[in-house]
Amino acid sequence: GGVGEIGKNMTCLECGEDIIVIDAGMTFPGEQMPGIDLIIPDITYLKNNQHRVRGIVLTHGHEDHVGGVPYFLKELNVPVFGTKLTLMILENKLKEHKIPGSVQLNTIKEGGVLHLGCFELECIKVSHSIAGALAFSITTPQGVVFVSGDFKVDYTPIDNQVMDLARIGEIGKKGVLLMLCESTNVERRGYTMSERTVGATFARLFEENKTRRIIIATFASNVHRVQQILDIAAQYKRKVAFSGRSMLNIAEAATKIGELKYEKGLVVEIERIQNFRDDELVIVCTGSQGEPMSALTRMASNDFNKVTIGANDTVILSSSPIPGNEKMVYGVINNLCDMGARVIYNSITEIHVSGHACQEELKLLHTLVKPKYFIPVHGEARHLIFHKDMAVQLGMPESHVMIPNLGAQVEFTAKGMKRLPNVPSGAMLVDGYGIDDVSSVVLRDRRHLAEDGMVIVVVGFDAYSGLITSGPEIISRGFSYQQENEQYIDDAKAVVRNAVSRYDLRDYSCFAEAKRSISKELKNFLFKKTHRSPMILVLFIE
Amino acid sequence: GGVGEIGKNMTCLECGEDIIVIDAGMTFPGEQMPGIDLIIPDITYLKNNQHRVRGIVLTHGHEDHVGGVPYFLKELNVPVFGTKLTLMILENKLKEHKIPGSVQLNTIKEGGVLHLGCFELECIKVSHSIAGALAFSITTPQGVVFVSGDFKVDYTPIDNQVMDLARIGEIGKKGVLLMLCESTNVERRGYTMSERTVGATFARLFEENKTRRIIIATFASNVHRVQQILDIAAQYKRKVAFSGRSMLNIAEAATKIGELKYEKGLVVEIERIQNFRDDELVIVCTGSQGEPMSALTRMASNDFNKVTIGANDTVILSSSPIPGNEKMVYGVINNLCDMGARVIYNSITEIHVSGHACQEELKLLHTLVKPKYFIPVHGEARHLIFHKDMAVQLGMPESHVMIPNLGAQVEFTAKGMKRLPNVPSGAMLVDGYGIDDVSSVVLRDRRHLAEDGMVIVVVGFDAYSGLITSGPEIISRGFSYQQENEQYIDDAKAVVRNAVSRYDLRDYSCFAEAKRSISKELKNFLFKKTHRSPMILVLFIE
Repeated sequence: GGVGEIGKNMTCLECGEDIIVIDAGMTFPGEQMPGIDLIIPDITYLKNNQHRVRGIVLTHGHEDHVGGVPYFLKELNVPVFGTKLTLMILENKLKEHKIPGSVQLNTIKEGGVLHLGCFELECIKVSHSIAGALAFSITTPQGVVFVSGDFKVDYTPIDNQVMDLARIGEIGKKGVLLMLCESTNVERRGYTMSERTVGATFARLFEENKTRRIIIATFASNVHRVQQILDIAAQYKRKVAFSGRSMLNIAEAATKIGELKYEKGLVVEIERIQNFRDDELVIVCTGSQGEPMSALTRMASNDFNKVTIGANDTVILSSSPIPGNEKMVYGVINNLCDMGARVIYNSITEIHVSGHACQEELKLLHTLVKPKYFIPVHGEARHLIFHKDMAVQLGMPESHVMIPNLGAQVEFTAKGMKRLPNVPSGAMLVDGYGIDDVSSVVLRDRRHLAEDGMVIVVVGFDAYSGLITSGPEIISRGFSYQQENEQYIDDAKAVVRNAVSRYDLRDYSCFAEAKRSISKELKNFLFKKTHRSPMILVLFIE
Repeated sequence: GGVGEIGKNMTCLECGEDIIVIDAGMTFPGEQMPGIDLIIPDITYLKNNQHRVRGIVLTHGHEDHVGGVPYFLKELNVPVFGTKLTLMILENKLKEHKIPGSVQLNTIKEGGVLHLGCFELECIKVSHSIAGALAFSITTPQGVVFVSGDFKVDYTPIDNQVMDLARIGEIGKKGVLLMLCESTNVERRGYTMSERTVGATFARLFEENKTRRIIIATFASNVHRVQQILDIAAQYKRKVAFSGRSMLNIAEAATKIGELKYEKGLVVEIERIQNFRDDELVIVCTGSQGEPMSALTRMASNDFNKVTIGANDTVILSSSPIPGNEKMVYGVINNLCDMGARVIYNSITEIHVSGHACQEELKLLHTLVKPKYFIPVHGEARHLIFHKDMAVQLGMPESHVMIPNLGAQVEFTAKGMKRLPNVPSGAMLVDGYGIDDVSSVVLRDRRHLAEDGMVIVVVGFDAYSGLITSGPEIISRGFSYQQENEQYIDDAKAVVRNAVSRYDLRDYSCFAEAKRSISKELKNFLFKKTHRSPMILVLFIE
């Protein structure tokens, strides 16, 4: 039997002729990749073993676990398994991608058992910042593999269904070969607070802001958070209006499957809010991460015709900035402050709890599952190494822990754990509607263009005489001349003319060399004058 | 008397014929400004009142307080006042900017008094993450203005000189008209820990890593932090090597003026480290914010010939990521982990303390100074508003607090506080060696280029016949074709040819219109094919 991680949040188990895939996530690119929309796993290995793939099982419906599924299904049509909410979220995505109904979506339930090839999967309910999250205990011919998924231990969850720790203990007692456990909050001490504590803060804030309009931004997929807002709104006789595409989509889906419960008439359309007084309203919207096109961000930049922010608004960001989003989030908060709103956010009030286990919860899981081998997953290198150290402190031999890298393939046999050569793997870049077509050259160019702009030199020449017939013309974009603009351009033209004069343009074979030489001299000239190195493109036109 | 904030960290006091300037900072631009190096205050107002400016007084030597001074002095040569270390740091900058020796730098001391026009400034020592930091109590004909500068209350500072709280109390008792107080940590509860607590953590880490090489990245300007490292290194019989330009500069300057004290022979050059065993060395370097060209970042990307990271290295980041730098910092940490180093950083150990006052310290200052009016400064909108609320909770009438915006001008007379029209103000962009020459068009272009790249269309034509003689050629940079590359280009050329055919190129007056039309149709074509909108530039060449 083998385990491989072949892309961001995609894990495969392989035994004999059977392969199952757990999750297929996507990530958003950093600043180093301007123009890239998203990054998905490379599934070359699975395409090469197409006939052996028995299905994809999903732990939960977050983007970084299901966002890659539509791209996956376009290439490999295999059955998909997930809880009701997870599949609802996925279905919305499949519709956007225009993926036909021939895809098989199969609902699985907490406590249920699923057979895929030689694998038997037991679905174990866990708490997380989305409803319908699962861990899997997977019985294989080689032993049991326990996959934590993303989880936290919440003794007072909103749906009153506590993670079945006793069952996990039972599984552990029978013997677990391998655990894959998430590592997001492994650096944080103690316990993650219960989702219910956020409800208590909401209650206080509703009480303190009785005469004001309340606007709450949170993650659309945090159905339990939204449920708490609906409950408190009902209690304070306020109507709730949802705003933002994903908020509307998920609220609708979750209501349909009974994950969100509320009295008819509680929810009103955002278009109808002018029919209500400020103290009769709660707006629940997207944008808690300061996402550029989200409802809250547009409100904060006065670019949202349905809601105008004013001095009687209390805006609550029920979230905490994901690393990298800080500037955007605080930018939105500052704008809202400037518009006179009262803004409540996590640095000043406890208005958010994480969905991931902290150190004591992770130790609890390790202790209950007591696996023979351990692979920390779902974290950056620093998290995985920290998690390894934690496992070792809990008594596991260091040689029984493996830090995976992308494409890692590990074999478990009677003899133990063995690392096999990596499988093809990596990040596929999605840009516009193209996948994998943004090469490193293009990325490098974009970064260069962004830094220093571009200067284009056009030289028209006559092929018979070899003389310059028009130009050199110099055109720039994103590159600034100083005030002495005109003089610069004239000087730059002289540099080009001087460089060209050394070549005989009747001879095509010297063109590449002539272009290089023009580029080089112009580059030196511009750097000396402006301390910038724009991209230079030289065109010869006959 | 008037107070104005005319740029990021630049405040002016004006009374009768006299103006003094407090600090002249610079900031680094966000992602929204690719290619911009730094941002400095607009000093138009001061240039217009040149003969009245009596000098610049500096609270401390951090970039965001002195970084704008060289640019300022190039335009307005006025005397500068600061403590020894502040001026040492400034002198290094002036040298880099080749500013001549005619600039007057005047040393001021903790406890000293300075007269500038009608202003009498008392210099009050404060603790901060740089040595030589001051607050100013400024007596003006209208009353006393208390300027906190950046500060924290440290009862056990490394230089044993505690902020003179009793003197501040005395000043407060006599009556303060106005306080300007920093707001950086106003959202944080409690007290900021003493710098000395970091020393205790260092001691523990040196003990735990006795056989390993220790590399510590920290802010070069945190002289007291560096002093603690030197002391502990001496105790553990390790040599210290500095690395990184600003670390070398500041260490040298601070040693010269006696702010850093150590035995001769403790410090060795980084070039000589191969003469020592791992357990005999501490490398102190720049890069604690993951800055791209810093020593630590280069070590972490194996791009630093003087230090090669390996499994016997313990790397300590004695810092906390400044908002916006998280991704860079964690990127460096992950790389170091991947290279096998043990990495210690603030999320897992208390290896850094802030230099700014938390809530209880701010309340202490408000209570001691007890000003009649209050202007919160040095923070984002959210911080200033929070600080205002704090002042109100401490008993100040809301009407006595003003939230300043850039360029705000406030007048204080016997009648009270009055807001005057804003003065010219704002951010000046520095790009290469040019100031203010990066217009919004250039910035917009750079963003566009970074997002979607560029496509250039060149059409050679004959002015007599109006016929296309060469091309259309299509060249792209930073824009990706899909795999069907060739076909696309041919189709794109056809689109261009088709658009051109509708114009008579013998008539120059239609050129602008023809170019617009080509751009538009090509843009539509490319968007349909790739869902991207590269910048399109059309060139007609005769």
